[in-house]
Amino acid sequence: MGNSTRYDPRTVLETALEQAVAGRDEGGVPIGAALFTLEGELLGAGRNRRVQQQDPSVHAETDAFRAAGRRRHYRDTVMVTTLSPCWYCSGLARQFRIGHLVIGESTTFTGGHDWLAEHGTVVTVLDDARCRDLMTEFIARSPELWLEDIGE
Amino acid sequence: MGNSTRYDPRTVLETALEQAVAGRDEGGVPIGAALFTLEGELLGAGRNRRVQQQDPSVHAETDAFRAAGRRRHYRDTVMVTTLSPCWYCSGLARQFRIGHLVIGESTTFTGGHDWLAEHGTVVTVLDDARCRDLMTEFIARSPELWLEDIGE
Repeated sequence: MGNSTRYDPRTVLETALEQAVAGRDEGGVPIGAALFTLEGELLGAGRNRRVQQQDPSVHAETDAFRAAGRRRHYRDTVMVTTLSPCWYCSGLARQFRIGHLVIGESTTFTGGHDWLAEHGTVVTVLDDARCRDLMTEFIARSPELWLEDIGE
Repeated sequence: MGNSTRYDPRTVLETALEQAVAGRDEGGVPIGAALFTLEGELLGAGRNRRVQQQDPSVHAETDAFRAAGRRRHYRDTVMVTTLSPCWYCSGLARQFRIGHLVIGESTTFTGGHDWLAEHGTVVTVLDDARCRDLMTEFIARSPELWLEDIGE
């Protein structure tokens, strides 16, 4: 494990943001995520594919988690996501004890990141205007799709 | 929606149990789940496929949720699972506001079902010996795989 945390939150966010932009360009929900080691090595990246795959279980974080494949533990990993994780994705992070969480923005939606921090996850909330703009434009354009994606 | 709850917990559990047995027979983690309407109509069934698909994101509940496809809301659905749902699957149920939860057993593992009950889910915990035996035998046979599946 080690405590040598070398990843840079703003650098790892770029990978999640690329995924979110790709999702938007495909007509999907523009949320991206990635899983990294604490040293900043990419393990897997993903994006919400509800629309693209007609699959409600594929949120950005679960897609990135899947892409990273089977691992024995996640204490020494960072999940980065363009948007505060919903309860589904927060539950994923809690169950698998993902050590660190980096969030692009939590203005347009706030999920369970405070709950994760209470349970020991190291949480960094950035306030990235590009992430915020992606969601603001998406919610204005496709409000019903957004509500479907968060079960409201 | 309506309040005519007609599903029978023990009847819907049989579908989840069939999935769990199939998973065991495939060499997988023997946990099964299914999503039903409150009237007892099957929407989708699934099982843990960590081993079969080498995919850590496929827990029984997420597999059943995926099988049910895109839906506008889940208030009037029942998730039935052979084992108390882990935080990942509890988060799924909370985010999508799945109205009812039926659990085969919570002796071999207890996840977030009390938390779901606090947040309004109608939770029924059965104490089904077949579900318990499946997990007890699995944990004795494959302890490392079980710990991997719950991130411990």
